[in-house]
Amino acid sequence: MTAALLDALRGAVGSGNLLTDPAATAGYAHDMMPLAPYGRPYAVVMPSTTEQVQACVRACAGAGVPVVTRGAGTGLTGAANALDGCVVLVTARMNRIVELDPDNRLAVVEPGVVNQDLKTAAAAQGLFYPPDPSSLDTCTLGGNLATNAGGLCCGKYGVTGDYVLGLEAVLADGSLLRTGRRTVKGVAGYDLTRLLVGSEGTLGVITRATLALRPLPEAPGTLIAAFDSVKAAGESVNRVVRAGLVPSLMEIMDATSLRASAAYLRTELAGAGDQALLLCQSDTGGAAGEDELDRMEKLFRQAGAVYTHATRDAAEGALLLRARRVSLTALEARGACMTEDVAVPRTRIADLVDGCAEIGARAGLTVAVVGHAGDGNMHPTVLYDRASPEEYARAREAFDAILALALALGGTITGEHGVGKLKQEWLEREVGPVGMRVHRAVKDALDPAGLFNPGAVLAERPGARDAP
Amino acid sequence: MTAALLDALRGAVGSGNLLTDPAATAGYAHDMMPLAPYGRPYAVVMPSTTEQVQACVRACAGAGVPVVTRGAGTGLTGAANALDGCVVLVTARMNRIVELDPDNRLAVVEPGVVNQDLKTAAAAQGLFYPPDPSSLDTCTLGGNLATNAGGLCCGKYGVTGDYVLGLEAVLADGSLLRTGRRTVKGVAGYDLTRLLVGSEGTLGVITRATLALRPLPEAPGTLIAAFDSVKAAGESVNRVVRAGLVPSLMEIMDATSLRASAAYLRTELAGAGDQALLLCQSDTGGAAGEDELDRMEKLFRQAGAVYTHATRDAAEGALLLRARRVSLTALEARGACMTEDVAVPRTRIADLVDGCAEIGARAGLTVAVVGHAGDGNMHPTVLYDRASPEEYARAREAFDAILALALALGGTITGEHGVGKLKQEWLEREVGPVGMRVHRAVKDALDPAGLFNPGAVLAERPGARDAP
Repeated sequence: MTAALLDALRGAVGSGNLLTDPAATAGYAHDMMPLAPYGRPYAVVMPSTTEQVQACVRACAGAGVPVVTRGAGTGLTGAANALDGCVVLVTARMNRIVELDPDNRLAVVEPGVVNQDLKTAAAAQGLFYPPDPSSLDTCTLGGNLATNAGGLCCGKYGVTGDYVLGLEAVLADGSLLRTGRRTVKGVAGYDLTRLLVGSEGTLGVITRATLALRPLPEAPGTLIAAFDSVKAAGESVNRVVRAGLVPSLMEIMDATSLRASAAYLRTELAGAGDQALLLCQSDTGGAAGEDELDRMEKLFRQAGAVYTHATRDAAEGALLLRARRVSLTALEARGACMTEDVAVPRTRIADLVDGCAEIGARAGLTVAVVGHAGDGNMHPTVLYDRASPEEYARAREAFDAILALALALGGTITGEHGVGKLKQEWLEREVGPVGMRVHRAVKDALDPAGLFNPGAVLAERPGARDAP
Repeated sequence: MTAALLDALRGAVGSGNLLTDPAATAGYAHDMMPLAPYGRPYAVVMPSTTEQVQACVRACAGAGVPVVTRGAGTGLTGAANALDGCVVLVTARMNRIVELDPDNRLAVVEPGVVNQDLKTAAAAQGLFYPPDPSSLDTCTLGGNLATNAGGLCCGKYGVTGDYVLGLEAVLADGSLLRTGRRTVKGVAGYDLTRLLVGSEGTLGVITRATLALRPLPEAPGTLIAAFDSVKAAGESVNRVVRAGLVPSLMEIMDATSLRASAAYLRTELAGAGDQALLLCQSDTGGAAGEDELDRMEKLFRQAGAVYTHATRDAAEGALLLRARRVSLTALEARGACMTEDVAVPRTRIADLVDGCAEIGARAGLTVAVVGHAGDGNMHPTVLYDRASPEEYARAREAFDAILALALALGGTITGEHGVGKLKQEWLEREVGPVGMRVHRAVKDALDPAGLFNPGAVLAERPGARDAP
């Protein structure tokens, strides 16, 4: 089997785009989540065209070898992790912005385009592609589509899926599915576009996307507010929502993450207001933007902020946001990190942060929380000692306890990272047995042989696949 | 079979909520599209609870009798049209707004809630539910969800699907599926919420929805602009898009629809600028809103508008919009109407309007065009004499020619009304054979016996169902 498959893959992409040396393929074995399982790929292919993807998929289907599609590998759930003996299909070489149409405010892109590259190309035409995962300098749109990625913009601008007008995807039999449209509106048939978005490579290989763009917003003004309690910060978020304000960015940091960032940046925290920080931006511009920041500042002071500072200077704003941007790096400087991705209703943010502190205390571990307060998507991070199996086990328990807490608060196990090969069992706890049955039925309808990314989103059925 | 089914349905909903008299059930035989086929229902049930829906669906599944779910019957594609011998399940009695949560900006509703009733309840809390189909005073949210309904707001605010956080739906085996979440963000598993939205009752019966709300916008300012050519009006739309402006409403009327509305309203058209009218609103408010209207007015004049008029007065604005709001009624006063629902890229609006005029001339019939210029969703309306079978046939040909034109212009066969029992063959022309295969696979995965709304979206397979 294997020689024939290699020949077929080589024929499809050329020998320069096929890796089989274990030393080379090992670099494609996993993404950036250390907890999800991974195996050794049999081969890595790097197609440049849709036709090459089709040929690769047909070859793997014929050989019964699973296909794991991978973008830049910046995912945080192991969704792109290899299985032993699989073929990893890397979309990085399909990196053309095929079209940028300012008059219809849309772009047509291949999956390997880096997120920031689309942003830059759009901005040159006065247009804006909002989704902004932290890895935007390196992550690719294909991965963003596969995970329905979010970022800091979502409270105002939504997530990746909100910008997808249409897709092309290679199905498990190698045929090419075209979904959606180029028009702003369209309701012809089932929303197969949204079904593919966020399906983590389990239903097809996305080879092209038509994405909606927005007018470029104004340069943002920035506001920070420091609090003596998480409760006061949470109440501030409630007041912003209740007042009908929609900041273009509203992030929260707890005391632990603040301390870590301060140490990393070699700055000092004032004694007062060191329990929670809100960082906000408004990109409305003009007098309305000023008014938005002013109203937020007043609301924060009324809710108990001990310090606030607002600036219209973009460079100063970026400096103020640095504490948030370096937070994960700062935490990683203190130990190994398990980063969560739960989301809760915005009114329950303070409950989640307090609950995470309790979970950390019970586990005897530090749990730091940063998150997107504007949409309730929180990233609690459990710190542990990589060298201690016992501490790892406790960290894992804390990680699970945070998931349970999020569900108990009316939230979800994943706000923007996905299920991947990390949270399949938790998916069932969230969606229930009927939901799981429908998930399996949909997967079987599109990929009956289980070719695409087995074990992602849905746990592999026992005996479903024999290792090749 | 039939007596047992009637007993089961009566047991489920009580005899007061079960209609079998043909004189009574005839009122539930079809929606508001005169072209789509319909049959005589065997019975009409009006459940009040999810449990009653489940019992009805189980009874019908057991008897092998198809279920057609119906909201207020204001649809325009026959999606809710009865089949001979089917059970029509009317959701009108499930009309509670279960929850309105201003702090998380969401509402939980039953499917029978009238669209305007949610708008009104939300507004009382300073919140806004944007989707605004023309029938908003009578249409229900269940129907809006089933068709992914739009309206006049979509260029700025999107469609129904953009506001759905989660759903409950009864599946073909009577089990209850819960999809989605209450949080702003969430990516746990496949997007089954979006799969159900717009599926026109073919995959399940929606019994509850969690809907996102927005802050209430400012009272709108209104701007109208009259043109001597459709081309100049189309160019004006292009300039608005290119300038990065996003009006909260931007409608276009062609000469024929303008004449019909003028006659209906007993007003006179000026000789100049009678070839096309743009009607726009900005709900941005304040100086930014003023600026938005000013900039549009200048762009329109530069593009050749012969007359423009702007007002901040809400009552005057509503009066100006009357010509658009009465347009279909005004056309109906002149003859029978076949109303289309195509959407094209915004840059092709003038091409579509001109093409419709040509199609009308070829058919020897009047084709009037009104539409949502802000999103490219156009409603060409073919006028014909109901008493003349020959003219009906020509109108039908013109109707099809408009669909072909929309596809040729890179558009879609339906922007917001849906496929229903009217455009199933056209769906295949739009999505292609692979797309149809996936549609059928998804339908079979969720509704293997074809219980729900057979013949809607997808044509019935020959011999798939014997009439009961």
